[in-house]
Amino acid sequence: MENANCLFCRIVAGEVPAVIVYEDEHSVGFLDHRPLFHGHTLLVPREHVETLGDLPVSQIDPYFKTVQLLSRVVETALDAEGTFVAMNNRVSQSVPHLHVHVVPRRKKDGLKGFFWPRTKYNSEEEMLAVKNSIAVELGKIKRQAK
Amino acid sequence: MENANCLFCRIVAGEVPAVIVYEDEHSVGFLDHRPLFHGHTLLVPREHVETLGDLPVSQIDPYFKTVQLLSRVVETALDAEGTFVAMNNRVSQSVPHLHVHVVPRRKKDGLKGFFWPRTKYNSEEEMLAVKNSIAVELGKIKRQAK
Repeated sequence: MENANCLFCRIVAGEVPAVIVYEDEHSVGFLDHRPLFHGHTLLVPREHVETLGDLPVSQIDPYFKTVQLLSRVVETALDAEGTFVAMNNRVSQSVPHLHVHVVPRRKKDGLKGFFWPRTKYNSEEEMLAVKNSIAVELGKIKRQAK
Repeated sequence: MENANCLFCRIVAGEVPAVIVYEDEHSVGFLDHRPLFHGHTLLVPREHVETLGDLPVSQIDPYFKTVQLLSRVVETALDAEGTFVAMNNRVSQSVPHLHVHVVPRRKKDGLKGFFWPRTKYNSEEEMLAVKNSIAVELGKIKRQAK
């Protein structure tokens, strides 16, 4: 096991019971035991990485192919109308092992307001300053990659 | 332009102005004009697809590599402590063109409660019935792929 103190590593290793709904060489999917709605599934990479940013780039393709597969399957299996697919990186992340939530959604299921309140930019300048900060960081990463 | 009625296709085509923070041959990232927090970025595939389930499998790798890149960059650029990375498929999806939200997060930023309320399974049997439904749908997709 990669990290004996990590709940999700222990689930991957079979040391902590969970209702497994998917597994392959890269990842394991299981039912969240305190679901937003029944069928709420968590997909974790077998390898212990904390956040999306930490996932090895070679794992992006197989991991998110499975996220896509689960988004289709969970919706159909639970007779839902859509899905909410999300991950929390560090803040609001209950277990520090990357996990994507795949949650079946229905209209008027009560989660309508979860994506609020929204704020705004007070001016065009404020918005462009944010764009600039992002451009600077992108530039740094591109230079590091060279 | 792929879909003249689609706001995000029009942004990709340059017909509707947006503050673009990233673009490559596969996808375009821009600031949400009604952000959860400043720096809230939307990444859309150039190709008009409605949901994650509709994204061509060949696009999974480049698209989510960029999601990963943006999750790092938005966090650093906004001097944040983490990120929220999410997509709504159909339900709560304001524009029916796949878009991943990349939102910078800080502790006590007020979004603490967005992932609630949770529900529960009333019994082990209820949980296993859900597992079964998912297994049935996975089996159907595997058979279709053969």
